[in-house]
Amino acid sequence: MAAQIGVTGLAVMGANLARNLARNGYTVALHNRTKARTDALIEKHCDEGEFIPTESLEELVGALERPRRVLVMVKAGAPVDAVIEDLVPLLEPDDIIIDAGNSLFTDTRRREAALAEKGLHFVGVGVSGGEEGALNGPSIMPGGSKQSYESLGPMLEKISAHVDGVPCCAWIGTDGAGHFVKMVHNGIEYADMQVIGEAHDLLRSAAGIEPAEQSKIFAEWNKGELSSFLIEIAAEVLGHVDAKTGKPFIDVVVDSAGQKGTGRWTVISALELGLPTSGIAESVFARALSSQHAQREEAQTTLVGNEIPTELPDNFVEDVRQALYASKLVSYAQGLDMLVAAAKEYDWELNLAEIASLWRAGCIIRAELLKDITAAYQNERPANLLFAPAFASAIADAVPAWRRVVATAVQLGIPVPVFSSSLAYYDGLRRDRLPAALTQGLRDLFGAHTYNRVDVDGTFHTLWGEDKSEVQQD
Amino acid sequence: MAAQIGVTGLAVMGANLARNLARNGYTVALHNRTKARTDALIEKHCDEGEFIPTESLEELVGALERPRRVLVMVKAGAPVDAVIEDLVPLLEPDDIIIDAGNSLFTDTRRREAALAEKGLHFVGVGVSGGEEGALNGPSIMPGGSKQSYESLGPMLEKISAHVDGVPCCAWIGTDGAGHFVKMVHNGIEYADMQVIGEAHDLLRSAAGIEPAEQSKIFAEWNKGELSSFLIEIAAEVLGHVDAKTGKPFIDVVVDSAGQKGTGRWTVISALELGLPTSGIAESVFARALSSQHAQREEAQTTLVGNEIPTELPDNFVEDVRQALYASKLVSYAQGLDMLVAAAKEYDWELNLAEIASLWRAGCIIRAELLKDITAAYQNERPANLLFAPAFASAIADAVPAWRRVVATAVQLGIPVPVFSSSLAYYDGLRRDRLPAALTQGLRDLFGAHTYNRVDVDGTFHTLWGEDKSEVQQD
Repeated sequence: MAAQIGVTGLAVMGANLARNLARNGYTVALHNRTKARTDALIEKHCDEGEFIPTESLEELVGALERPRRVLVMVKAGAPVDAVIEDLVPLLEPDDIIIDAGNSLFTDTRRREAALAEKGLHFVGVGVSGGEEGALNGPSIMPGGSKQSYESLGPMLEKISAHVDGVPCCAWIGTDGAGHFVKMVHNGIEYADMQVIGEAHDLLRSAAGIEPAEQSKIFAEWNKGELSSFLIEIAAEVLGHVDAKTGKPFIDVVVDSAGQKGTGRWTVISALELGLPTSGIAESVFARALSSQHAQREEAQTTLVGNEIPTELPDNFVEDVRQALYASKLVSYAQGLDMLVAAAKEYDWELNLAEIASLWRAGCIIRAELLKDITAAYQNERPANLLFAPAFASAIADAVPAWRRVVATAVQLGIPVPVFSSSLAYYDGLRRDRLPAALTQGLRDLFGAHTYNRVDVDGTFHTLWGEDKSEVQQD
Repeated sequence: MAAQIGVTGLAVMGANLARNLARNGYTVALHNRTKARTDALIEKHCDEGEFIPTESLEELVGALERPRRVLVMVKAGAPVDAVIEDLVPLLEPDDIIIDAGNSLFTDTRRREAALAEKGLHFVGVGVSGGEEGALNGPSIMPGGSKQSYESLGPMLEKISAHVDGVPCCAWIGTDGAGHFVKMVHNGIEYADMQVIGEAHDLLRSAAGIEPAEQSKIFAEWNKGELSSFLIEIAAEVLGHVDAKTGKPFIDVVVDSAGQKGTGRWTVISALELGLPTSGIAESVFARALSSQHAQREEAQTTLVGNEIPTELPDNFVEDVRQALYASKLVSYAQGLDMLVAAAKEYDWELNLAEIASLWRAGCIIRAELLKDITAAYQNERPANLLFAPAFASAIADAVPAWRRVVATAVQLGIPVPVFSSSLAYYDGLRRDRLPAALTQGLRDLFGAHTYNRVDVDGTFHTLWGEDKSEVQQD
């Protein structure tokens, strides 16, 4: 009996996807560079479905029905190219290679184009949900040709998370679209975690609320408009007590956050697209700053706070909740704005309602909010998420609290880079005149970079070094 | 008589560098793809020195003494590669190609390595100062081999700006070091201009001070610790009245700031180096936001400010000056931090005192401040600019005003993205515990990303889905 799909790379994510496929009735051929992982999977989980263990890529490919589907789950970067190079001579036209890792979308575009020339389909698939999601139903974002989705889509939809019977998986767009959307998902995830961190820091450092009590507050917040996986697990982490010391768990954890690269990639893409993705950027910078151990240590004795004693606003906890929600909306708006710009730049037809819909379950940023975002893009198709009536109204309600919280934090010396940066974005976006006019004036003076006028079409330059008369350049 | 240097690419920057060289006694061979520019230069400026006009690259190269020095001043990107390709067959070992444009440093590294294989020197040179500087003495940042600097250095030093007889030109480091340092210079320039814009906006929108009056305030500021070219020309631009309308000039300029790319490159490099370069990033984002015309227009009618009426602090103008100064110091600190990290990453021996020294004159960010920065790196060699006693003390003095200004702006709905982001960086850097510990807890829960403990060495993971016991991973 031929396998319907092969999986190579059986570390935890690959193994869990393979098990998920088998549990859903597919026969799965297995391969790993070192055989021990294949053996371990078979030994522990062979009762979950039909597996065909193999010891080489040749054997793996030989075990598959045609057109062949080979899912690759190895470390992003050179290892993906290495596996592709080994696989290609074994495959035939119309076969499909699936890269389910966190590859950079530009790599996926390059690989897709190269394999298309050989008649092969290369499908970059974003998979979110961690180990748990991979096993029980992740959110799945496949790119690649539409034709490949006809063969692949039913399997991926079946193993994905579902909301009310609707799978959290849909064809995203050609070539690297799936990996791009997954990258932006991860960028939003960075911001989501950072705003939770800022709320937590304010509750503790400004209001003196200890982690155990905060755990209850986050659990309460999880019942309202903030309801989401990350708020839920924040309550769990905040409530956890370290067994060794009896201290709150988070007090024994080194406060330096790691990065695997997708947040950074998101910001680099935003810069290349010319977009103000400040919330995600500040989240990436916050992690970077947290990891500058030597400088942080020296700064503690060198830099003076000179904080300004400030009374907390009444209902500070509720204010912080609203500031968190507003900042989160901004990060989503900035992330979704990237999808609109990327669709134009890379010639993808991205369906924002569908993308928001498939983030509703399975993935790390899953949240009640995504139901409303889905609805907004189904109905009003706003040019910016914040313009959708429901969100414009929600953020208008939250903005006084948001201003109070940032002003308080700034005076108390508590860093809230994403709260404050998101508010600056909001205030910048809605402003009739920005100081960019002065920037243009300076640029024209020192570099003859020219400027436009508000009253006449054309490009102008002032002869600053001469009589300051204005000349039209076109 | 053979020319000592050839210049190809005679748009305004190339022409002005050629004239600067000729005025300093060098014989300069000239070439431009279209002959009209060469003719125009000769016609207008042949009395300034010795020029040898040529009509082809062959002729240009033939007019040069050996080893030949060919300065290329064409648009960054593919045009540079095209000129190199045409030049290489005409050159001999030890000849030098100089790229004086704003090339991306990674391109310079690639080109340098490729030409070194052919025995040629390729020198990426950062030149700052605009048209004016190119003609009368720019700040010059040459990379490339040390050997090439023996031949090239004396000429570049002679045509550069000088401070007390010291040239604003020194060998920066191998391959792309010169272009990297110039890129960071430009990133700092972005932040410098943005903080000026934020100060201007606050003075007008919060304090109602009109541009003509602001011009005087900036001129006054230019006498103190903010003394710099950009503050000086801000006073000039703010004071300028539009002849057509009689309105302040900045009120007739469209408030959308352009970008040529070096600011964006700086942030991308910072992200690749893993550094929190938030001030420069927010400056780039502010320009990007200013250019989102359609969204800005819609936001004006859709997004509600709900500002909080707030009394201005006493001495608001002085507070704004101090906030500007503190934010500017942070951007310099973040930019210089990039040089330290880049030196490690790309194996350059960057001399920060020398680099700060050659920014003292000629370039766009020239400022009194750079004398103190030079001194700090000559004497204390701080791990972060802010740790130098003079700056730690200056920023400690400024921080109460800085907090007041940001808190006021936030309540009044005036976006100050760099003021607030720089303050968040400052408060983050000096903080003993950051909420990154919670981030690590969340990452460990959903992705088994592990964490370190404050009390024991090792890498740990909590079995969140099981009994929440902790296991050591190494």
